[in-house]
Amino acid sequence: MLTIANHTFGSRLFSGTGKFSSTQTMLDALIASGSELVTLAIKRIDKEQGTDNLMAPLTKLGIKLLPNTSGARNAEEAIFAAQLAQQMFNTNWLKLEIHPDPKYLMPDPIETLKAAEQLVKLGFVVLPYVHADPVLCHRLEEVGCSAVMPLGSPIGSNQGLLTREFIEIIIEQANVPVIVDAGIGRPSDATAAMEMGADAVLVNTAIASSKHPVTMAQCFKQAVHCGHQAHLAGLGQVSNQAHNTSPLTGFLQADCSAQSNMGTN
Amino acid sequence: MLTIANHTFGSRLFSGTGKFSSTQTMLDALIASGSELVTLAIKRIDKEQGTDNLMAPLTKLGIKLLPNTSGARNAEEAIFAAQLAQQMFNTNWLKLEIHPDPKYLMPDPIETLKAAEQLVKLGFVVLPYVHADPVLCHRLEEVGCSAVMPLGSPIGSNQGLLTREFIEIIIEQANVPVIVDAGIGRPSDATAAMEMGADAVLVNTAIASSKHPVTMAQCFKQAVHCGHQAHLAGLGQVSNQAHNTSPLTGFLQADCSAQSNMGTN
Amino acid sequence: MLTIANHTFGSRLFSGTGKFSSTQTMLDALIASGSELVTLAIKRIDKEQGTDNLMAPLTKLGIKLLPNTSGARNAEEAIFAAQLAQQMFNTNWLKLEIHPDPKYLMPDPIETLKAAEQLVKLGFVVLPYVHADPVLCHRLEEVGCSAVMPLGSPIGSNQGLLTREFIEIIIEQANVPVIVDAGIGRPSDATAAMEMGADAVLVNTAIASSKHPVTMAQCFKQAVHCGHQAHLAGLGQVSNQAHNTSPLTGFLQADCSAQSNMGTN
Amino acid sequence: MLTIANHTFGSRLFSGTGKFSSTQTMLDALIASGSELVTLAIKRIDKEQGTDNLMAPLTKLGIKLLPNTSGARNAEEAIFAAQLAQQMFNTNWLKLEIHPDPKYLMPDPIETLKAAEQLVKLGFVVLPYVHADPVLCHRLEEVGCSAVMPLGSPIGSNQGLLTREFIEIIIEQANVPVIVDAGIGRPSDATAAMEMGADAVLVNTAIASSKHPVTMAQCFKQAVHCGHQAHLAGLGQVSNQAHNTSPLTGFLQADCSAQSNMGTN
Repeated sequence: MLTIANHTFGSRLFSGTGKFSSTQTMLDALIASGSELVTLAIKRIDKEQGTDNLMAPLTKLGIKLLPNTSGARNAEEAIFAAQLAQQMFNTNWLKLEIHPDPKYLMPDPIETLKAAEQLVKLGFVVLPYVHADPVLCHRLEEVGCSAVMPLGSPIGSNQGLLTREFIEIIIEQANVPVIVDAGIGRPSDATAAMEMGADAVLVNTAIASSKHPVTMAQCFKQAVHCGHQAHLAGLGQVSNQAHNTSPLTGFLQADCSAQSNMGTN
Repeated sequence: MLTIANHTFGSRLFSGTGKFSSTQTMLDALIASGSELVTLAIKRIDKEQGTDNLMAPLTKLGIKLLPNTSGARNAEEAIFAAQLAQQMFNTNWLKLEIHPDPKYLMPDPIETLKAAEQLVKLGFVVLPYVHADPVLCHRLEEVGCSAVMPLGSPIGSNQGLLTREFIEIIIEQANVPVIVDAGIGRPSDATAAMEMGADAVLVNTAIASSKHPVTMAQCFKQAVHCGHQAHLAGLGQVSNQAHNTSPLTGFLQADCSAQSNMGTN
Repeated sequence: MLTIANHTFGSRLFSGTGKFSSTQTMLDALIASGSELVTLAIKRIDKEQGTDNLMAPLTKLGIKLLPNTSGARNAEEAIFAAQLAQQMFNTNWLKLEIHPDPKYLMPDPIETLKAAEQLVKLGFVVLPYVHADPVLCHRLEEVGCSAVMPLGSPIGSNQGLLTREFIEIIIEQANVPVIVDAGIGRPSDATAAMEMGADAVLVNTAIASSKHPVTMAQCFKQAVHCGHQAHLAGLGQVSNQAHNTSPLTGFLQADCSAQSNMGTN
Repeated sequence: MLTIANHTFGSRLFSGTGKFSSTQTMLDALIASGSELVTLAIKRIDKEQGTDNLMAPLTKLGIKLLPNTSGARNAEEAIFAAQLAQQMFNTNWLKLEIHPDPKYLMPDPIETLKAAEQLVKLGFVVLPYVHADPVLCHRLEEVGCSAVMPLGSPIGSNQGLLTREFIEIIIEQANVPVIVDAGIGRPSDATAAMEMGADAVLVNTAIASSKHPVTMAQCFKQAVHCGHQAHLAGLGQVSNQAHNTSPLTGFLQADCSAQSNMGTN
């Protein structure tokens, strides 16, 4: 079981709520994914009780909400958004996202650490989205973040685990859960992240933009589960050379010459 | 459902029987894998009804046997082995393997095509193990092979899908099932092969050499299933740029300046 | 120095003549490349002494011609083309290309071996273009080919060394020169092939389709040379861990505490 | 020509001075590399005019010195080291390195930015060694750094350009020179970095730990030069499909059927 800030999760697949064609499709996909933690942007909650209110159905499903500060360009905006989210969603959990760059949405390490430190002091359970930077992850852990969320590749790019070697270092050194976030485009990427020893993955675009989001959500559920199981079971060594699975047989030496003309009959 | 030579398979994971620590572990792993087709080397059947007889328990489990010609160095030896296997296992199904090189066990394209052509004429259902060579796969299909089995990387190396781009071409062009064989070291490799559109994968070393072969067999079962489902559901586009899953919010512009001193409180 | 069939080459960069915007650009690029062996398709020689006659200027530059059988779909067509080329170009050197597939131009291993065997008997110096298949390369060597030309990726795709691990095996096992052909898109690909121990590379599209073919030809000349030199000099070990180049200093322990308030002044 | 802080460099290969077997070998390799900027750790200068004094011979060669703060674990230590270096080497140029982690020597983004800001104010020309983090690079540029030095892979690992996609983003967005530092293990890595548009590369381990450092230094000199030239000349498009360099010939249709029996004679 995965525990973050004293909360235990049965599923290691976390999901997002963006980019779905309809709210119903999103809810169906979330149910299919088995996710127990779901991130959503503040804007999606209409302050006037509008049609986009996701809170009630998600809460009804027993899904824990993880508001994110997407859109914040610095610590101040992120902290403001966090406090807004706390009131709206009635939760102190927060996915901290600060990305000043509108093209690649790369996170800002400096503002993220600054905001994280303050938000932890304000009582938030902070899960920061960051570059796959081992030292930064360590510092976020030191200021009290409950997990770290290094990126695999740019958000929404479906490019997969471009940062594989650095995530391995982060996993090796972290004392809080490591959740691979952003860029996971295929179930095999999720499986690979879990095989490496990640504690969880967060997937959004790959599910939401599939032609069949519900089926794809099921695929990711399985992919995460089997990657985690494989990590626990222990993966085999990689070798530069072949190792025969079928032992070289003696039957040929013994029999083949005697009956060799049988071969072509 | 996958159909090879009029035989239908519910599972797209095929397994091998080599390298297991004991026969019982092997049987448990095969059950856990859900495999309905299992390859085994001829030598493993003791002609004098010895202790290594796998045939009875496998058959009892309803598993179809796929004898392989591992150890054969040319067409003549392979054909001889095939005929021996046919008598012993009472099946005309055959995994055709011809690898003259003892270090990397790379298959011989020339002898494989020659043997395949003759074995098809002799009534065998031939599944040839080959390099990920699109033209060779096409020619094997033309002489009547029932499937093609291109390699991902050297047998037993656990190096994964080194031949990814060529397997994609083979899948695009083939009219018979494409079974990715050899080198699949992690469940994520199996998932990736199925996402690309492979019809099945054959796994042996990665399961047999795991510390927990039964668990690993379950992982591969799931990995193959979810990769296939993801292929059917349709994978998202890969992009060089980020695509925000959380729409950039307007809340900041509206509210943040007015309350910006709230941010750091 | 590289020797193929008793002919010695000062340059390990071989070039092609296709896709250039003009004959003059091609000649300038070939001179800049330093290539001493250049491949060209039979059709490029106009039998009626037309405008596309490349033979005279190339020969004048001291460049050896390597006619290729591009367009041949089987051994018979290739042998016919070879004999035509022999008359036209007055050379028994031949780049043997047989690719029945018009989309990916993947070579046919069976027809290539068949044609190679006959052409060697007919007195040709045969350099076959093949998939990066170690066993096939070995067999081509056995029938008397003077070199093998495994592909890096599909012709003209500029995808680079997709077959890296298999080319390494071919280099390890070959007793004739290994020339990496097809797919080399960047100078760094050529350098990488030479670092692995390839004897030469053949480049065409990457030079011809550059905006500045002459400059690009010079780049490839250098890239091949430095890759080869690096191979001879011996490359360093790859490690999973950092190894400090600047020894960890003692100055900090000694001095920093005493003067630590100096730091921020 | 490359300009950093009003200083112009004829060579885009920067070198290090660590790990060489002897001072003489190091000097010979530096000369062979053509480097005009060379980094060295403070400790290498013996304050008592000891045997390891590199300063005089390097200066004599016209090589500009770039002292580095290797060993510093935070901004305070780095600033102290910088000031020490300024006195010893009589230069305000500085390679800023802060890596608290002794295993992977990953740089600290927070302390690096903090130190950079202060050092710029103190009049240093600051070239910071950082993770390949586009936002961090942008912020370092904003506080007045004269270049950024993103890592390819862990220092001394020879793993090459693991951060390729992120370095591409950094290059796209930077207004100061981008120098790829750390992990470059082979000349082909250096070429590839330059092809992507890097302004320079810094190489140390790959040269110093080669069996033939002087030859390897020459290789890197060429590799950097040809990668830069190729970038300027314009690289060709990468395609998923083959593009024939030798136009499919008509000669076969015309002549082959008439003379097809000639083929096998």
